[in-house]
Amino acid sequence: MAIITLTTDFGEKDHFVGAVKGAIYSELDDIRIVDISHSVDPFNITEAAYIIQNAFNSFPKGSIHLIGIDSELNPENKHIAVKLDGHFFVCANNGIMSLIASEILPEKIVEINIHDRIETNFPVLDVFVKVACHIARGGTLEVIGKTIQEIKYLTGIKPVINNDESQIIGNVIYIDNYGNVVTNITRKIVKDVGKGRDFEISARTYKFKTIHERYSDAINFTVERHKREEDGKKLALFNSANFLELAIYKSNPHTVGSASSLFGLRFRDTITINFL
Amino acid sequence: MAIITLTTDFGEKDHFVGAVKGAIYSELDDIRIVDISHSVDPFNITEAAYIIQNAFNSFPKGSIHLIGIDSELNPENKHIAVKLDGHFFVCANNGIMSLIASEILPEKIVEINIHDRIETNFPVLDVFVKVACHIARGGTLEVIGKTIQEIKYLTGIKPVINNDESQIIGNVIYIDNYGNVVTNITRKIVKDVGKGRDFEISARTYKFKTIHERYSDAINFTVERHKREEDGKKLALFNSANFLELAIYKSNPHTVGSASSLFGLRFRDTITINFL
Amino acid sequence: MAIITLTTDFGEKDHFVGAVKGAIYSELDDIRIVDISHSVDPFNITEAAYIIQNAFNSFPKGSIHLIGIDSELNPENKHIAVKLDGHFFVCANNGIMSLIASEILPEKIVEINIHDRIETNFPVLDVFVKVACHIARGGTLEVIGKTIQEIKYLTGIKPVINNDESQIIGNVIYIDNYGNVVTNITRKIVKDVGKGRDFEISARTYKFKTIHERYSDAINFTVERHKREEDGKKLALFNSANFLELAIYKSNPHTVGSASSLFGLRFRDTITINFL
Repeated sequence: MAIITLTTDFGEKDHFVGAVKGAIYSELDDIRIVDISHSVDPFNITEAAYIIQNAFNSFPKGSIHLIGIDSELNPENKHIAVKLDGHFFVCANNGIMSLIASEILPEKIVEINIHDRIETNFPVLDVFVKVACHIARGGTLEVIGKTIQEIKYLTGIKPVINNDESQIIGNVIYIDNYGNVVTNITRKIVKDVGKGRDFEISARTYKFKTIHERYSDAINFTVERHKREEDGKKLALFNSANFLELAIYKSNPHTVGSASSLFGLRFRDTITINFL
Repeated sequence: MAIITLTTDFGEKDHFVGAVKGAIYSELDDIRIVDISHSVDPFNITEAAYIIQNAFNSFPKGSIHLIGIDSELNPENKHIAVKLDGHFFVCANNGIMSLIASEILPEKIVEINIHDRIETNFPVLDVFVKVACHIARGGTLEVIGKTIQEIKYLTGIKPVINNDESQIIGNVIYIDNYGNVVTNITRKIVKDVGKGRDFEISARTYKFKTIHERYSDAINFTVERHKREEDGKKLALFNSANFLELAIYKSNPHTVGSASSLFGLRFRDTITINFL
Repeated sequence: MAIITLTTDFGEKDHFVGAVKGAIYSELDDIRIVDISHSVDPFNITEAAYIIQNAFNSFPKGSIHLIGIDSELNPENKHIAVKLDGHFFVCANNGIMSLIASEILPEKIVEINIHDRIETNFPVLDVFVKVACHIARGGTLEVIGKTIQEIKYLTGIKPVINNDESQIIGNVIYIDNYGNVVTNITRKIVKDVGKGRDFEISARTYKFKTIHERYSDAINFTVERHKREEDGKKLALFNSANFLELAIYKSNPHTVGSASSLFGLRFRDTITINFL
């Protein structure tokens, strides 16, 4: 069964998501709709890109990912359908695809041109659903748009590496549900620049000398429970998306606090790695 | 495949929604369950009606819409099943159907009478699921209830039109996920009363002289980006549900603010249109 | 169609839930995934147990319940799959199953041992999905783990009964979406200890002498609406999960307040029943 995923900033409450699902089922009986997230911060393309990037490739090839963020058609914001790594994306050409496709070349990009008779302020319902259902039925991209060569490029915040490669300056790109702080410093960059050297990570007044693989590495299980000294259970690790993350083991933002609140780190703040 | 949609004030966290879905799948293997919203403000019938009204008719005819708002059976709150515009609704007779059906006459109304042996404080699970599954199997309404002629009428807040038709006084009925302010003034009322005359919309100290069709009408795309003067990007438009909405282009309630916070407009506040 | 339910503390926003669903659909086309809750307070096993306990047995026998709470593998936290009452559970052996299984003996427990080549900080994606899909295909537990006799026992907060059985001291275990206060005092305990005696329930300065069956018992419908004196509409009742609950009829935590805020009762606070 074909799969259409939904990632939007519609929120969990309004009628928007329900209306979109109803419209899809009205076009196709034999389709599977999967929510990725509807709680993207309104119009936050960077956040949406991080979420989709780390979810889409768990889905089977051929899945159709509908992105409802900042999607109203206007002279500076066209609609596109993109084939990338065997997956299809339907979204506005507002830069989000350049973030998702930052390390993969799209196989095909079309600018959607089925708008002739559609004047709408709800394009996800009126345009994207039609395009997604067309693809789900096995239709080609050429039928619903004209091929273009490039997508709008958005300069995502990228880590800066200094000249002698002794330093990486990265930024916070996401705070997750546990309040853990995700940076834009990937495992690959650390490996390529660091070449196995020792390092020190600085985030405000906090320092880390190791990047772990698992959250429970914050705990020394060889020491009996009541004798453990866990240094606040803070740690740096590569998360499941292979980004450097600063975390507190078993944190809870609603009660004891989290990496974000305890380290004082917010979206776009700086994290530095100095190689020794 | 038959569709049962769910709209409730159960929230996203508690076991209620999961239990209801489990009960439906226990009765029917071949059914599709679609969430419309579970984040309706507790017992807020007006809000639930706005959400359902704008989602239900995207679904295929024959869909069954289960509404779990204020549904405990008591002498003043019976259970009903309603056929309306080819769709089925299962809910309490607390006035919500009169809001949803405000412009469409129900084809059939029955008062559910399968409660003989059911004493429950979770009627959505114990009663509505049975009724919805009965309808999904193709069963008739007469089997699960006795036909009644009228549903309980709830006086929704309606716009007031003055005697000489120079003024419409409406109210805020919904604040959406973007903080945009939805009023009860429909496109139809403006057209019928205004008859093409010029007008001025007043909402507290803010004035609007145009009702747009799209959010991006707040932006003048013919002017170069850095030279634009967009007047705070505020605008009035008819939203996708055809209600007059006051909006801020690309607002974010969590950061820069929204129409609701910036205009100081809350649920039930007044918006006035004066025709010139 | 086999059913896999998901209960996690992943939240509604991050990519985690979407990634897990994608991975399941990549393994199995013919499967039904149902969300129970993703809004469990981070690492709160007690809360998760309450939610699952009251949802799982609405599902058909044979359903597979995947629990993603505190699931990272470490020397003190192994992974298990459990057959209980005809249902399957896949989770960490962190005590949560002992809470869910408090009154039912598991039919089978295995400690999952497919981790040989899996080093992961996202075990729900990398381990639980594989196990759940194996079970959904009809595979036996023995193939993915070795049988163990006991699950880790977690001392849930249980009500205390005094020596002469004149008093039950219970605690708040859950605050629901309406702000109603759920205690760990079950209908069975009250019946067994009380043996029909009169009683008085004390919660801070509030007293209750009756335990109702329905929320609307707070209202005396035989009195005309405008003459009713409803004592703040507060009441004690056995909720749909058969726990003693203190409630306010039609409360709304976002506006007028709720049982939790009005009675000043939070998680773990004490509620006492004195038999007369």
